[in-house]
Amino acid sequence: MKTLDSSAKGAYLIAVTPFADDGSLDLASTDRMVDFYLEKGATGLTILGIMGEAPKLTAEESRIFVRQVLARVNGRVPVIVGASAPGFAPMRELTESVMELGASGVMVAPPSTVRTDDQIVAYFDMVNETLGPEVPWCLQDHPVATGVQMSASVILRVLKNSPTCVMLKHEDNPGLAKLSAIRAAGERGDAPRVSILTGNGGGLFLPEELTRGADGAMTGFAYPEMMVDVVKAHAAGDVERAHDIFDAYLPLARYEQQPGVGLAVRKHLMLKRGVIASEAVRKPGPKLSAADVADIERLVARQTRRLQEIGRSGKA
Amino acid sequence: MKTLDSSAKGAYLIAVTPFADDGSLDLASTDRMVDFYLEKGATGLTILGIMGEAPKLTAEESRIFVRQVLARVNGRVPVIVGASAPGFAPMRELTESVMELGASGVMVAPPSTVRTDDQIVAYFDMVNETLGPEVPWCLQDHPVATGVQMSASVILRVLKNSPTCVMLKHEDNPGLAKLSAIRAAGERGDAPRVSILTGNGGGLFLPEELTRGADGAMTGFAYPEMMVDVVKAHAAGDVERAHDIFDAYLPLARYEQQPGVGLAVRKHLMLKRGVIASEAVRKPGPKLSAADVADIERLVARQTRRLQEIGRSGKA
Amino acid sequence: MKTLDSSAKGAYLIAVTPFADDGSLDLASTDRMVDFYLEKGATGLTILGIMGEAPKLTAEESRIFVRQVLARVNGRVPVIVGASAPGFAPMRELTESVMELGASGVMVAPPSTVRTDDQIVAYFDMVNETLGPEVPWCLQDHPVATGVQMSASVILRVLKNSPTCVMLKHEDNPGLAKLSAIRAAGERGDAPRVSILTGNGGGLFLPEELTRGADGAMTGFAYPEMMVDVVKAHAAGDVERAHDIFDAYLPLARYEQQPGVGLAVRKHLMLKRGVIASEAVRKPGPKLSAADVADIERLVARQTRRLQEIGRSGKA
Amino acid sequence: MKTLDSSAKGAYLIAVTPFADDGSLDLASTDRMVDFYLEKGATGLTILGIMGEAPKLTAEESRIFVRQVLARVNGRVPVIVGASAPGFAPMRELTESVMELGASGVMVAPPSTVRTDDQIVAYFDMVNETLGPEVPWCLQDHPVATGVQMSASVILRVLKNSPTCVMLKHEDNPGLAKLSAIRAAGERGDAPRVSILTGNGGGLFLPEELTRGADGAMTGFAYPEMMVDVVKAHAAGDVERAHDIFDAYLPLARYEQQPGVGLAVRKHLMLKRGVIASEAVRKPGPKLSAADVADIERLVARQTRRLQEIGRSGKA
Repeated sequence: MKTLDSSAKGAYLIAVTPFADDGSLDLASTDRMVDFYLEKGATGLTILGIMGEAPKLTAEESRIFVRQVLARVNGRVPVIVGASAPGFAPMRELTESVMELGASGVMVAPPSTVRTDDQIVAYFDMVNETLGPEVPWCLQDHPVATGVQMSASVILRVLKNSPTCVMLKHEDNPGLAKLSAIRAAGERGDAPRVSILTGNGGGLFLPEELTRGADGAMTGFAYPEMMVDVVKAHAAGDVERAHDIFDAYLPLARYEQQPGVGLAVRKHLMLKRGVIASEAVRKPGPKLSAADVADIERLVARQTRRLQEIGRSGKA
Repeated sequence: MKTLDSSAKGAYLIAVTPFADDGSLDLASTDRMVDFYLEKGATGLTILGIMGEAPKLTAEESRIFVRQVLARVNGRVPVIVGASAPGFAPMRELTESVMELGASGVMVAPPSTVRTDDQIVAYFDMVNETLGPEVPWCLQDHPVATGVQMSASVILRVLKNSPTCVMLKHEDNPGLAKLSAIRAAGERGDAPRVSILTGNGGGLFLPEELTRGADGAMTGFAYPEMMVDVVKAHAAGDVERAHDIFDAYLPLARYEQQPGVGLAVRKHLMLKRGVIASEAVRKPGPKLSAADVADIERLVARQTRRLQEIGRSGKA
Repeated sequence: MKTLDSSAKGAYLIAVTPFADDGSLDLASTDRMVDFYLEKGATGLTILGIMGEAPKLTAEESRIFVRQVLARVNGRVPVIVGASAPGFAPMRELTESVMELGASGVMVAPPSTVRTDDQIVAYFDMVNETLGPEVPWCLQDHPVATGVQMSASVILRVLKNSPTCVMLKHEDNPGLAKLSAIRAAGERGDAPRVSILTGNGGGLFLPEELTRGADGAMTGFAYPEMMVDVVKAHAAGDVERAHDIFDAYLPLARYEQQPGVGLAVRKHLMLKRGVIASEAVRKPGPKLSAADVADIERLVARQTRRLQEIGRSGKA
Repeated sequence: MKTLDSSAKGAYLIAVTPFADDGSLDLASTDRMVDFYLEKGATGLTILGIMGEAPKLTAEESRIFVRQVLARVNGRVPVIVGASAPGFAPMRELTESVMELGASGVMVAPPSTVRTDDQIVAYFDMVNETLGPEVPWCLQDHPVATGVQMSASVILRVLKNSPTCVMLKHEDNPGLAKLSAIRAAGERGDAPRVSILTGNGGGLFLPEELTRGADGAMTGFAYPEMMVDVVKAHAAGDVERAHDIFDAYLPLARYEQQPGVGLAVRKHLMLKRGVIASEAVRKPGPKLSAADVADIERLVARQTRRLQEIGRSGKA
């Protein structure tokens, strides 16, 4: 098992959960998906997040899926498992179970019921108590999904109270000023310097976030090489190149990041790329129309051309 | 096992989940609680609802608790189990498991993600598909908890599509006009006539709801005899007596129905009445202050006096 | 003009805005309403709040109504005017206009767009800048209407920053612990000691709030003598008497406090009591059904009997 | 005055409200802004919308601003004025006032308090009653701002009831399937065929929306030539060209469409382009940091280069 710590960088991919056409777990596609992400350069994986349809799995299916992913990854990169839960007993149970299976850490977002700064801080004190002193964890700041607005100052309070919190998944929008403030506090030593991986709008602000000091991306996209290569170019100091790559993928990324229907777009593209065997999404979930598919085909063709223009293969 | 059907009447009690001081399930208190509810005249029980701290239990704890309640009830009254879930695989799994253990039916509320009439109708079509043709179920209309506003017309559309939906748990506020409209449609044959049990504000409009045609109450209160006796008096045609009883309990009921802190009030009162051995609420959850306890003591003393004035024992 | 300061006590009535049957402002009823509130013992009035249908008035109608109320009050009690606005230019304009007409102060709630503690504090800094050093104001904490959850600690930060904030309108629910914390901080000198008037649930926790140190009530009810007399009895040290009076009115108060339809109930009762000439509510607004009116008649009759039992006239 | 009817096409620009550095209305900049929009090819203007900081203006300022815009436009294109209001008396007053000044129609969004299909339909029945038989209006579907989710079927119900509703401002996200459904119903004659102008995500799905049958765009962007030229190319049948133009502007458009801070970005760019004399945004409002400005400068330089590559001048 790969350790998760605050030095994490690069592109952590939010994995989908592959189903067969009949809706059952597809473990062969799961293996292919893991291989695909790692071949494209993922430096970590995150599973059982919202885009992984975690709440639609039975407890047993979750265990089977986590075990399959961890076996296939086989320690090559850290694997983070979503452990947000409405109660602490299920959070502890899930965490113990996945850490035993070999996960590197868990990710926790606040429940929609906490609102004030004091409630947020108190909630994460209980999270720390629940996870114990051994489990590294990632704080997920995703107001669109949770309804919880966390200011930079409250995130810093949480980080100060949380010795095992090693990572922030930043997906507030707008979020650039917040990212700058949290990074600056870490640099000044006012709060622990954690790894900051961004997923704002599904990565739609990645180059700007890297310029503000993010360590990489944690999000999903059917073309993970975008995140990997943008981060690499930026880390190598070639900011314009990072933007060139980003811009080439942006029209399709934007389309894939539509709320609701986006997961169907992602699975459709992963099917077309040969990664998974079915684009099935469990109910309640979106389905693509013929017009959606036509949009996607046009965008993929345009993306391929554009990638060639900027000197990249752009092959599906 | 007692069957659940659309003739259900009386007082269905929303049960708490008793914990020991250390937070573990307290099965002896669970038995005492079942006995208490049935002795006080409950015509049904509902478990694993929001006030039952269901999301704070592990899957294994839920099973143990359900099994314990069902064994103790032993078929004397119907038992409904909350089965709302963010996905249909867990809903199906939980439903199959509790029906096998002897539950009489399940209760389902819409998830906060459905908003429009069409989305609501489509969601409950999927619920019907998930539960299958054999499981009686109760539609929970609780906008404060779910954020989903269902008009009378959309509820009637759901009822028409749902041959196994036998009950409506009505807790919209204001809700009297809606209750009248749904009842009238059932009487006219425009939609199936289901049992309507009310829990609006925790039963704070019970006499008026009975006058509008509700069949009884489904809610929680540390004095379940209030619901039982108000329903009985009303059914016997003594509406003023129903109000007299209701009014005597109203000041304390109002206090117990405060959002958030209310569950701690209820467990405190059930501890004082000798029903459960601990007032522990699992985190994140409310705790009573000394001032809260002083309020409660005053209200209990006043309630006891008032019950005596109207010719009832009012003993704890 | 009566000054508004932090020594305010008693019952501040939230006034309705009387309309004629055709929806136009009814100034004769406005005068009668002012007289009625003052005869019943109101120690202050609050106008153009949510229950005053302020957003349904044109700017000119607002001015006419404010002028009429102020002329009739004629300095006998302080009059507070709601000045919450989505922008500071309209807030300043409205404030200047009503202060010039003789208002004693204004009331401001946060807009639904502020969420974090820092945003709340920054917002009220701008309110202070807008209102200037001369206008006393009341901070309205009403999460159900605004969606803004303010913790005790953030309210204390706002009070410390706001030399002209002299009053807190407390209507969070549950709110007793918060009220205790804010009162205690004021007593200890950790923050300015402002007047705390409560309206939680429309006054449905008034006796308990007085026990926690509230200075009185600010809310609406067609029987304002309830608030006046509960506060008086409590202030005189007769807490049980305060509860007796409160309990007698509680069944009807509860009915009048239903969200949405409540304003129609209040206007209906004020019409029946001869205070206003029409129960018209402007669109979009609720209307009473025959069943609602029957409920109200029963509750009024019961209230009258109960008041006689506890030695009060209870006359309409 | 130019008439607004259901044949409207092209690019309706959502105008900003220019302020001087001291926050006062800047009428000279207002004139320059109108000229700028029309020179760039706007086929209509929309003023006093959310991005126009309408709620931050006093009533008098609104009138002055509307008069100035209308005078400068001088009948060359239709001008729509935002008239959403929490009450119908202010909506009627504002509508009468702006129509008298020469506006072509008004735009109305539902208030956040309506939720169910029946409530939505009833609300717009009252809007029709308020606006009367003479005023053309645009239905604004903007769930992110209003919290009101309107299904395609409820929008069609509203259109059927609304003889003077001639336009739909479509900004639901995801919204492509909805747009297709509404367009198809109009084509089939199941509902009136209104003009559909889109602003989903600030125009971030414009080419796909045109392919689905939208008649144009109604949104704001500091480079309105983007909307104008994308619509033109698409209307001429050159869909790939439409995408080329769109893609060139997309990185900056995405940055300008960040919630909250976006208006500051837009005003900054309009200042740099010489359109307005100050980038001042009224409080509460966003401010740009040095890092934001650096981001913008990079994006503008890249956009200029990219526009040259695709054979367009791209001059500021």
